[in-house]
Amino acid sequence: MNDRAYVGTSAGVLMRTDPRSWRVSASQDVNYEVRQLDGLLDSSNRAFLDACGGSEAVTRHIVVIDERVDALYGTQIRRYYDHHGIDLRALVLPISEETKEMDAAMAIVRHLEAEGVLRRSDPLIGIGGGVLLDLVGFAAGLYRRGVPYIKVPTNAMAIWDAAVGVKTAVNALGRRNRLGSYHAPSKALLDRRFLRTVDRRHLSNGMGELLKLAVIKDLRLFTLLEGHSQMLLETAFQDDIVAPEVISRAVHGMLEELAPNLWETTLERSVDFGHSFAPLLEMRALPELLHGEAVALDVLLSCRIALRRGLLTRDEVNRVVSVMRAMELPLSHRFFADSEMLQEALADTMRHRDGLQRLPMPSGIGNCMFLSDLRLDEIQSVAREMSDAGE
Amino acid sequence: MNDRAYVGTSAGVLMRTDPRSWRVSASQDVNYEVRQLDGLLDSSNRAFLDACGGSEAVTRHIVVIDERVDALYGTQIRRYYDHHGIDLRALVLPISEETKEMDAAMAIVRHLEAEGVLRRSDPLIGIGGGVLLDLVGFAAGLYRRGVPYIKVPTNAMAIWDAAVGVKTAVNALGRRNRLGSYHAPSKALLDRRFLRTVDRRHLSNGMGELLKLAVIKDLRLFTLLEGHSQMLLETAFQDDIVAPEVISRAVHGMLEELAPNLWETTLERSVDFGHSFAPLLEMRALPELLHGEAVALDVLLSCRIALRRGLLTRDEVNRVVSVMRAMELPLSHRFFADSEMLQEALADTMRHRDGLQRLPMPSGIGNCMFLSDLRLDEIQSVAREMSDAGE
Repeated sequence: MNDRAYVGTSAGVLMRTDPRSWRVSASQDVNYEVRQLDGLLDSSNRAFLDACGGSEAVTRHIVVIDERVDALYGTQIRRYYDHHGIDLRALVLPISEETKEMDAAMAIVRHLEAEGVLRRSDPLIGIGGGVLLDLVGFAAGLYRRGVPYIKVPTNAMAIWDAAVGVKTAVNALGRRNRLGSYHAPSKALLDRRFLRTVDRRHLSNGMGELLKLAVIKDLRLFTLLEGHSQMLLETAFQDDIVAPEVISRAVHGMLEELAPNLWETTLERSVDFGHSFAPLLEMRALPELLHGEAVALDVLLSCRIALRRGLLTRDEVNRVVSVMRAMELPLSHRFFADSEMLQEALADTMRHRDGLQRLPMPSGIGNCMFLSDLRLDEIQSVAREMSDAGE
Repeated sequence: MNDRAYVGTSAGVLMRTDPRSWRVSASQDVNYEVRQLDGLLDSSNRAFLDACGGSEAVTRHIVVIDERVDALYGTQIRRYYDHHGIDLRALVLPISEETKEMDAAMAIVRHLEAEGVLRRSDPLIGIGGGVLLDLVGFAAGLYRRGVPYIKVPTNAMAIWDAAVGVKTAVNALGRRNRLGSYHAPSKALLDRRFLRTVDRRHLSNGMGELLKLAVIKDLRLFTLLEGHSQMLLETAFQDDIVAPEVISRAVHGMLEELAPNLWETTLERSVDFGHSFAPLLEMRALPELLHGEAVALDVLLSCRIALRRGLLTRDEVNRVVSVMRAMELPLSHRFFADSEMLQEALADTMRHRDGLQRLPMPSGIGNCMFLSDLRLDEIQSVAREMSDAGE
């Protein structure tokens, strides 16, 4: 295997600006592929092997699997590897948001070391949800300053969110994703067949990120979700007409936003919609709230602020609420009564955005603008409405 | 302060290769400056402040200092900051190769969190030797996926080696620099005045990297070192004729090799000369051997192999040995009798070089070529000569 596409050529020059000064200017090219593939682990399907660089020389795959995924798919995965005569070197890890920390990343590092991976031509394959993919990317990014890896997402959130980007992360100091890197996978292979075994709440959770993307940048996706969210939940995205379009639009929309800003050179990112208050909310409420649930609550808070600012109509906000109901997402949380927590969440988000709020806001459904002048009392009065038990 | 030069523009495109596949191609521009500045911390000298982005808006500097450097220069540093009315937010850390691990990096991360640094405009300043700079770069690279930092090297090794590149590292699993990243500093500020307080052995240690660079790529540097190594040691690089030329040549030579290959796209790197067997040797001998001492031993082993291969003459090897004596570097070590350890060191280096030896070898002093066909018996017979107590 010789899959070096993930880092292409790079060029650099040295300029001597005066006898005592130098300037290094270099440019790193990064390339990766996101591909939808159905039936990835069907024994007869060589597509997975080929995607992982299936040359004759490959005799083993170094893999990290979420233990819940292994319980569901371990037999099938082992059958796949046996069928193709490849030695599976798997690390099965218990994965959760609570343990998405340095220790879990170090377990993956020890696996890489124990297997004696080569620095460039032994890609690590991560099979699991977003937390696992973030961890695998983080470990792969640090080990020997970066070894290649491939993402195989197995839940809803991961297929259209965690798998498609280049950010890696662990939680630290009680903060979500406080440590991380930009380490592009060589490939992300998306197989929605995995969603058949995802429970209803986790499907709903993943739909929180669909909601985000639809409201902030894709009216067509929003109308699809308005019409079909219940069906998508009930069929676990297995229908062959709506689900493929929804997934394609979501993946395409995410990539459209990420590609020109892969290293977050600009901190005004529409995909940060729903991620301004959510990170702290989610961490404080662990394990009660899932990531997509916290994001959806943040989306709703933002929509209500947008309403006050005249950016959305009441009818548009009601449409968002209806979609959230159809997605079975929460509409309120007691933490919204905690104005100190909201203030702290915004302060941390502002440090992350280099001192400004840069809050993505819908300006009509499907369009994005940014606000940096939100007042605490605006947030509080809107948040208070969301702290009641009911809607 | 708004010093974003370290990451310039970036561009990225999304290609939809077919309805089910996407390709992201993006390019990250990295820019940094290496500058020699004498008397960096003289109160009257605004150069340090200006280099760190000394606008009116700056009211604080977030700094990490090696505790030995703080003992020597702490008063001067505090006086400098007082003079300029800047609040010094310093973390003083005990630093050693033995504790260059994740825990030390996490202490720096906690400092960043406690100080509430902004993501782009609050550069972290590291003041210390190579271990400290590697740690500061590592922590700065991970915190919020990368915050800017500035390197201020205070010992010999760091001035012409650790400070000028973009690699960051911690040791892990008993392996040197097993985890790390490429995270360019915004600036490296080199002040050889710091060398006045460096003890003789650590000056000698730093000269190990000068020897490496001279033998593998710079005959003029080699002849300078042949003529002046004793004087440089005795004056701690404070003379105003030879030392500036030696340091400039070394920094320039390193940067010439690094700039076109900043992310190690090619694994054939002349600056890896002396770093094939040394990493394991150094880790196993901790704290007995310093990094530059281990590198020098590896250089000598390689020169002797080069002699057997007809790449160097006996006279040239003798010249290398003479310079090493003048630099007061070790010429032998008992570990060279341990052929299992040498084999393990080479095996690990080969994994790091993606399966091939890619050993930089001098072909005449000042020229580099690469070997990938070294036999164990060649290494052993040469190594045995270096395992005796004397030379």
